[in-house]
Amino acid sequence: MPREITGFSNPLIKRVRSLRDKKHRRREGLFLAEGLRILAEAEEAGFLPEMLFYARESAEHPIVRRLVRATEAAGGDVIETIPDILHKLSGKENPQTVIGVYPERIVPLSALDRSSADIWIVAQSLRDPGNLGTILRTGDAVGAGGLILIDDCVDPFSVEAVRASMGALFTQTIATARWDEFVSWLRAGPGQLIGTSLNTDQDYQMPTYQRPCFLLVGNESQGLPTTYEKDCDILVKIPMLGKADSLNAAVATAVMAYELLNQRRAR
Amino acid sequence: MPREITGFSNPLIKRVRSLRDKKHRRREGLFLAEGLRILAEAEEAGFLPEMLFYARESAEHPIVRRLVRATEAAGGDVIETIPDILHKLSGKENPQTVIGVYPERIVPLSALDRSSADIWIVAQSLRDPGNLGTILRTGDAVGAGGLILIDDCVDPFSVEAVRASMGALFTQTIATARWDEFVSWLRAGPGQLIGTSLNTDQDYQMPTYQRPCFLLVGNESQGLPTTYEKDCDILVKIPMLGKADSLNAAVATAVMAYELLNQRRAR
Repeated sequence: MPREITGFSNPLIKRVRSLRDKKHRRREGLFLAEGLRILAEAEEAGFLPEMLFYARESAEHPIVRRLVRATEAAGGDVIETIPDILHKLSGKENPQTVIGVYPERIVPLSALDRSSADIWIVAQSLRDPGNLGTILRTGDAVGAGGLILIDDCVDPFSVEAVRASMGALFTQTIATARWDEFVSWLRAGPGQLIGTSLNTDQDYQMPTYQRPCFLLVGNESQGLPTTYEKDCDILVKIPMLGKADSLNAAVATAVMAYELLNQRRAR
Repeated sequence: MPREITGFSNPLIKRVRSLRDKKHRRREGLFLAEGLRILAEAEEAGFLPEMLFYARESAEHPIVRRLVRATEAAGGDVIETIPDILHKLSGKENPQTVIGVYPERIVPLSALDRSSADIWIVAQSLRDPGNLGTILRTGDAVGAGGLILIDDCVDPFSVEAVRASMGALFTQTIATARWDEFVSWLRAGPGQLIGTSLNTDQDYQMPTYQRPCFLLVGNESQGLPTTYEKDCDILVKIPMLGKADSLNAAVATAVMAYELLNQRRAR
């Protein structure tokens, strides 16, 4: 049976609320995901929350009932509460119907099976959580194996990144590595490293890309460091006809990722 | 000569600060743009601010000097101030070096010259300012003529949209219209209306698109209304291999827009 918490000063509410801060997420190894759609996608991907909060008004919603049953069966803590507390937990003006608390899942490079997918995305010093979440969502769409985070990337488990990923956080494997670690790991097996750059004239539609390929995305304002570009097997440029010389990082990733997918589809 | 304002209670500071709210923007017909990069792009596109604020610490920066000179020459109001006031105006933790106040520019459909570009983007009930700004930025990159906003879209002049557009707000023409107005205008001349939809099996790379074409983007969570889909000349689907059935709206727009551009480049 779900237990009930309706008091704002309840220690569990305070603890879960604190997961909106990276420091607390790291300490607990837990993060928040919100909304029926994301929690249902997590369940489909095989992930149930350690704690599930729902508003008593939505107890009869079929997806809520399914999540409650599955979470309880898996030994999770299910808490019925009130919309104001969900609002406090989520920080959104229109609180979601459900909030789940999940264990963070970051794997080392050694845990990745590069042959399991044709496309992998590698992000370097990405700063915007919305971009990171959107890149995960695009990765899911193009059948990428996962996302490898290099250097000082924004936390993929921040509320904003989880929200923007629309559940892809649960379907995409996430690894972290330093650049030198990544390059050593990459060169120990097959894999083409593709960088987008302004320092090349090679159009992104010209090369025939190999499998697996690793699509490297640089920081939003700086792009890739020159030394990282030198480690790439191939540098390509997305044509831009306008006044600006760059695309949004998540957009550039998607344009490249769909070119990779389209080449594979065409063969 | 620039004048100096360093008092938080100065009425002009309060007035400019209020432009962060849509209600005040509408009343004044003015909006805020921040940062050297965006203001420099605006100047290149031929737009100078009615008011320019800069921190005295950056008075010697060459771009700041150029903007100050050009704004004064055009009869604009140039104000030297302190970082804390720029922070108050921008709402960002790291305030930008410069903030400009510009007149809003929204044109009616009748002011658009559809033959001036091969691609036009049409957004319906887009709710996220970051998506809207990112779509403007993508439009600039693919050489789009402009963005037509249908129904209840988020304000393109919000601080977040302006920021995400990275200056493309100044290079892309923005029009607004009701759907029936738009369809009447569209059908009075050449132009193919393309919708992305889950209700079709036609792959987005199959058709040969016409010029000019109008790429229709639907609301982030609802997609396009069925009646609007019926008005499209062609419905296409972007392939998705993963668990999710949709892409971020700005990502889907970019994937489609680059297909349109690539077809044109290939001919």
